[in-house]
Amino acid sequence: MFRNSALLQCAFFLLSSPLTTTAQISETWLRANEQRVLQEFQQLLSIPNVASDTANIGRNATKLVEMMQARGIRTKLFQTPGAPPVVFGELDGTSSARTLAFYAHYDGQPVDRADWQTDPFDPVRKGDRIYARSASDDKATIIAMLAALDAMKAAGQRPASSLKFLFEGEEEAGSPHLATILREHAAELRADLWLICDGPVHQSGRQQVYFGARGTTGMEVTVYGPSRELHSGHYGGWAPNPALMLAHLLASMRDENGRVTIAGFYDGVTPLTALEKKALADTPTVDADLRQELALGRQENPGRKLEDIVNEPTLNVQGIRSADTGKLARNVIPAIATANLGIRLVKGIPVKQSQDAVIEHIRKQGYFVTEDDPTPEVRKAHPKVAKVNRRGGGYPASKTPMDLPIARQVVAAIAKARGPVVEAPTLGGSVPLFMFEQELRTPFLGIPIANHDNNQHAANENIRLQNLWNGVGTMAAIMMMR
Amino acid sequence: MFRNSALLQCAFFLLSSPLTTTAQISETWLRANEQRVLQEFQQLLSIPNVASDTANIGRNATKLVEMMQARGIRTKLFQTPGAPPVVFGELDGTSSARTLAFYAHYDGQPVDRADWQTDPFDPVRKGDRIYARSASDDKATIIAMLAALDAMKAAGQRPASSLKFLFEGEEEAGSPHLATILREHAAELRADLWLICDGPVHQSGRQQVYFGARGTTGMEVTVYGPSRELHSGHYGGWAPNPALMLAHLLASMRDENGRVTIAGFYDGVTPLTALEKKALADTPTVDADLRQELALGRQENPGRKLEDIVNEPTLNVQGIRSADTGKLARNVIPAIATANLGIRLVKGIPVKQSQDAVIEHIRKQGYFVTEDDPTPEVRKAHPKVAKVNRRGGGYPASKTPMDLPIARQVVAAIAKARGPVVEAPTLGGSVPLFMFEQELRTPFLGIPIANHDNNQHAANENIRLQNLWNGVGTMAAIMMMR
Repeated sequence: MFRNSALLQCAFFLLSSPLTTTAQISETWLRANEQRVLQEFQQLLSIPNVASDTANIGRNATKLVEMMQARGIRTKLFQTPGAPPVVFGELDGTSSARTLAFYAHYDGQPVDRADWQTDPFDPVRKGDRIYARSASDDKATIIAMLAALDAMKAAGQRPASSLKFLFEGEEEAGSPHLATILREHAAELRADLWLICDGPVHQSGRQQVYFGARGTTGMEVTVYGPSRELHSGHYGGWAPNPALMLAHLLASMRDENGRVTIAGFYDGVTPLTALEKKALADTPTVDADLRQELALGRQENPGRKLEDIVNEPTLNVQGIRSADTGKLARNVIPAIATANLGIRLVKGIPVKQSQDAVIEHIRKQGYFVTEDDPTPEVRKAHPKVAKVNRRGGGYPASKTPMDLPIARQVVAAIAKARGPVVEAPTLGGSVPLFMFEQELRTPFLGIPIANHDNNQHAANENIRLQNLWNGVGTMAAIMMMR
Repeated sequence: MFRNSALLQCAFFLLSSPLTTTAQISETWLRANEQRVLQEFQQLLSIPNVASDTANIGRNATKLVEMMQARGIRTKLFQTPGAPPVVFGELDGTSSARTLAFYAHYDGQPVDRADWQTDPFDPVRKGDRIYARSASDDKATIIAMLAALDAMKAAGQRPASSLKFLFEGEEEAGSPHLATILREHAAELRADLWLICDGPVHQSGRQQVYFGARGTTGMEVTVYGPSRELHSGHYGGWAPNPALMLAHLLASMRDENGRVTIAGFYDGVTPLTALEKKALADTPTVDADLRQELALGRQENPGRKLEDIVNEPTLNVQGIRSADTGKLARNVIPAIATANLGIRLVKGIPVKQSQDAVIEHIRKQGYFVTEDDPTPEVRKAHPKVAKVNRRGGGYPASKTPMDLPIARQVVAAIAKARGPVVEAPTLGGSVPLFMFEQELRTPFLGIPIANHDNNQHAANENIRLQNLWNGVGTMAAIMMMR
């Protein structure tokens, strides 16, 4: 069990007692329930949740069902061959006129234990944070939803809207089956609005609501040198060096200011609306503070605001590996070099257009491109060979109009409970919003609760407890919205 | 114990019986002694030998002393604080007029066990090869020297020259203490010629004698992005990406044909002599065969012979690491990116000149260069920061004139026992020859025995047994040379 902390006692500056229709949760409730909520959170975080770990993914789903049923939610597992189970739940509201559906995911990014200070699946409380894989992305959000129901019940309240819950188990693997699942269960998933509960709040600390998210795709690119590592002395200057080939290839794709130099990469971007431009202008400027926090002497796309930049597509190298460095460094010409490319998309750019542009660019650099491991014959037949693994595809960006009435209602309800809200036309990160748009024809809104400095996707992922409790208030505000 | 193999029985086409003054070892001797020699080899290979592994390095030295004393060699350990022990030995010859000194090293390159098919320190015989770290580089050579003494003794022969042996324990770490040790023990190490027994024979399979070797230096370069890995969606296009910064930096250093584009990199190269040019012209051409063997569709420095190319300096990227790829790939902007640069030097280029040229080049790309881990303040104060680790320095190239009389005698003795010899003005790889030149003022000659495809410095290092037995013949030919 996490150690208790005096810090918690001052974490509720926004909350008054008792729970009212403005959905503020009481300090009394929190004191009485904090340990119980954190214990449940700890149990959930202790179950490893990389999407490919089938056995543990199943244990996560079972645990979620148990937690939801304890709140009177009617549950069901949506099973698809080869996919982790999707956990579905329903709870009636006091009014049958409106249904709100909450999406979150219970899987997490892969972990490289060597980089973690503590075991990623043995949650640890340090100061005002809990460290574990998915502590913020995205299990905290699920805990916040369920705790909101507990707090409402303790105050004799019930949700105004009927609620539906959908918890996915392979979002971090690119949600390869989500579209199919939404399509197959479209009737059960009917709702007036989908609330996509994933991502961080704004860096200013304000609650953020996002109306869209960048799409995501990418590929793993491997280039080939000699069929085995060679002594860098005996063959240096003669054997083609794949690490240097990869350096040239990557450098040809993007300049150091973040501008992608691949032909057609920016083609077709949908322009921002006037409302979106206004929302960006109204967003607090955090660039200078972030550069301080992250020890940066510069930023890419210099002179522009972070929030503006994430409204454009981008290409990043998310990892490179060729032979070894550090203690394992060897004096060799490596046999291969691999880069993990990540692409973020905005409205107007289909996944395939973006992937094809990258592949065409690789060809233009003189490479023979294959999607299979090249045979020795293929390697001998071409001066330069690149293997491209499209990694399951990805999905495009999607957006809800910023003037949609139900969206305005949600923003107003949150602002009443939690203070000024940052309205983001798009989140920089990706959530599979387009699938809700495409398969369910239902608008969506993104409601994140995690602190921005949560080490999401990296080692030592964490959640600030204050963000968790604020999230309980946000979720209650939405559930009780009349 | 290694499994015996019928292959061995045909491995001695060059050997006749009994041992004669031309130093051919007999098939009878080999049949009687093969298992014993391989058992001793296996014991030596089973002792891990990365230079930084002090305990095991000590066990290697103890084992060598035991093996040498069993041959009547008078041994001594040269101890230097912070360095592995150097094993020294002396054996009188039938003539006191000439002393030949044999250098080899007993340490090996680091191992990344994940890349090995078998345990690098549990030698395995597969087909006609033995697989283990240092099976070829460089423990086989030591075994060949000692087995040559056994074969000579069995034939009632003794070395004509007095012999000295020097076995180093940190060659693969760049021989940081060798110069000091040679200087301190100069009197004991007096000899007429040093025989540097390291490296591979020519790719044509012929015994090679090298008159020089490229020098070596290098550095580990780390460039910095944000102080922690960031979500590549939320910060993609804003946070500087160190993997892409490194790609640009490396691409600026060298073109894809192997030509180094760092200002001053080729300045001062000593031109080849007429004899050296003739030796290169006489060397069998192996480029096309090597491209087949290594599944290469091209070579760097196109149109030129491998042996010509290694007479120039070169720069290689020997490894890159930034975040992760494959199963551990994460959707992040990495925090750092590191490259292991290897530089090979030729006569006329000092180590420092070469390192300084690289560092100056990095500065010219806009980097603040430091040799320490940069503080957050340093990172914030500069748009681009690179840490350079000079990795202990390195050493320059060195050469013996190709017309030196004692060198001609050795080449003739080997040719008589082993057939046509490839004379290389320089080995592509590095051995610390210059230290023998500088500290002992003694000429040297390189006598390698390993097969060229030995995976030296890489995973699955191996020695062909035929090369080991040929090496016994080569060593005996030199020891018995009148």
